[in-house]
Amino acid sequence: MNTIIKPKIAIDGMGGDFAPQMPVKGAILAAKRGVAEIYLVGDEEILKNELNKHEVGDLAITIVPSQGIINDNESPALALRQKPKSSILVATNLVKTGAADAIISMGSSGATMAASVVILGTIEGIERPAIGGPIIGSAPNQVILDLGSNIDCKPSNLVGFGVLGSIFSQLLLDIQYPKIALLSVGSEEGKGNNLVKETTKLFHQSGLNFIGNVEGNDLLTGKADVVVCDGFVGNVILKLVEGFGRGFAKQLKETLSNHMNNQDLENLLNEFNKRNNVVDSKGGGPVFGVNGVSIIGHGSSSAETINKAVDIALMCINTKLIEKMNEETPKIMSTITN
Amino acid sequence: MNTIIKPKIAIDGMGGDFAPQMPVKGAILAAKRGVAEIYLVGDEEILKNELNKHEVGDLAITIVPSQGIINDNESPALALRQKPKSSILVATNLVKTGAADAIISMGSSGATMAASVVILGTIEGIERPAIGGPIIGSAPNQVILDLGSNIDCKPSNLVGFGVLGSIFSQLLLDIQYPKIALLSVGSEEGKGNNLVKETTKLFHQSGLNFIGNVEGNDLLTGKADVVVCDGFVGNVILKLVEGFGRGFAKQLKETLSNHMNNQDLENLLNEFNKRNNVVDSKGGGPVFGVNGVSIIGHGSSSAETINKAVDIALMCINTKLIEKMNEETPKIMSTITN
Repeated sequence: MNTIIKPKIAIDGMGGDFAPQMPVKGAILAAKRGVAEIYLVGDEEILKNELNKHEVGDLAITIVPSQGIINDNESPALALRQKPKSSILVATNLVKTGAADAIISMGSSGATMAASVVILGTIEGIERPAIGGPIIGSAPNQVILDLGSNIDCKPSNLVGFGVLGSIFSQLLLDIQYPKIALLSVGSEEGKGNNLVKETTKLFHQSGLNFIGNVEGNDLLTGKADVVVCDGFVGNVILKLVEGFGRGFAKQLKETLSNHMNNQDLENLLNEFNKRNNVVDSKGGGPVFGVNGVSIIGHGSSSAETINKAVDIALMCINTKLIEKMNEETPKIMSTITN
Repeated sequence: MNTIIKPKIAIDGMGGDFAPQMPVKGAILAAKRGVAEIYLVGDEEILKNELNKHEVGDLAITIVPSQGIINDNESPALALRQKPKSSILVATNLVKTGAADAIISMGSSGATMAASVVILGTIEGIERPAIGGPIIGSAPNQVILDLGSNIDCKPSNLVGFGVLGSIFSQLLLDIQYPKIALLSVGSEEGKGNNLVKETTKLFHQSGLNFIGNVEGNDLLTGKADVVVCDGFVGNVILKLVEGFGRGFAKQLKETLSNHMNNQDLENLLNEFNKRNNVVDSKGGGPVFGVNGVSIIGHGSSSAETINKAVDIALMCINTKLIEKMNEETPKIMSTITN
């Protein structure tokens, strides 16, 4: 008799551009691997109908009913109040109550973020949680944060991102002593805007492995393991990088169609996508700084991507990411004066 | 007898990673085309020796002697005071006195910028000049500014960049009614950092063809003709874009070497470079907002690139860019309150 207790993962069944199809398929893929028990959260009828399209047998998938969805175009703060039984809130509450060990959503990032902050709370010492992760194909283990949740930041926010990114890098990417850098306009100390200059002083006080500035081109070589920037800059580069990947793929296809047969071209483009589409190949990333495992994925995620997001969630759970963040962060943040 | 007076272009013979070789070669290429009279500014002995390596005959190249060079690692402001006879100062002075119609330098951008501001002065209404131009292969007529000379900006600075970029776009890129946008984190008005929000209000007052926000991915499609951002964000994306071009070229070479013969591969990479290396293929861009034509190029510029920079200078001269900027800018800038 197998008495091993498997982690329990809540998946927002209604979130994402292709919900409920993709979340349901993703849940099935993960359940079939037997790595977790899945709580699929959403409209009961819709999810049942969707599950019935597949061979689910006795897979460890439990539907948890919810009412309503928060869409991308809604104000997250307002929508959370207006739709208290929406899928993202019900799913996040499962983590709060301890019924689930992690929540995964491919729905509105703003709503997932807001629900995590409101329901799970923040890690002590962290005022503003962030989103982040590896986004560049040639530097797949380089964590960049914030990627868009904090548009105007103060220096202590950026130090917080550095602390959280560093712990993530140690535990999930197995980098023992992660190099932390600020994204700036020159590598020498003193080059940068006022925010970078002020944050540099705080990083020096923090005792973290701070290596100074990196520039835009350094992101491609992974000169630092953790790159910190405000969410304005981070979001601009995230979208630029995504656009570049798509643009080059298109250009490549046009240019090469006269040079090789279709099968070769397709293989090549697949390889290209795999190398450059980090977000998709990783499945998503955690909300950095909230007191629980909350994984945000791309709205356009496929079932396979959601299946991979389950692995990210499992890694966060198994490496005790949140416990470690709770232990380390207040100590480091108390060293800086701001 | 040919009595047409040709434009006179001063080239900093000592500026750039490959000076004096490349500036001298570039000057020869331009002079051979007969499009301009060239003043080659620098150490007389060094330039004479370098010119003597080539067949210069009676080409319209005149050496203008200077003493000293300002390097990339020097503080521009300090170096300008310490080296009053340096090549960049002597060359810029030729424009100030009317002896030359434009100055081109591939040397320290900071020093070229500073020399332009100090010697030529700024256009009325412009407090902070900018560097900018097209930088993205798939949007070769989209001007992005500032690319790094103004790290911390206030809203009126950004409006100034918009005005200057718009006039450049009309005259040099032949876009009748250029669409101006702010680079931000969402396309809806109201999305952005405080700087973007404040600048948006001013753009609405300006009477310019302001279309709102563009995002990182929009840079690739050229949704706007003129994209305005502070020099921090602009410099990060400039370096990221340059790095991406190089990174993809390398990746392409590795991946394709098993799929096609060397000649095909080389042709393909050349085509790729041509499509993506906008800065190099254009030759450089003007310092936006100074009262004279001052063209800054990449330190690593080849002779061919410098030759192209001469064409950019000629276009600025022939289209009366500076006159138009002097005429239009004060009118528009006086409409905004800041």
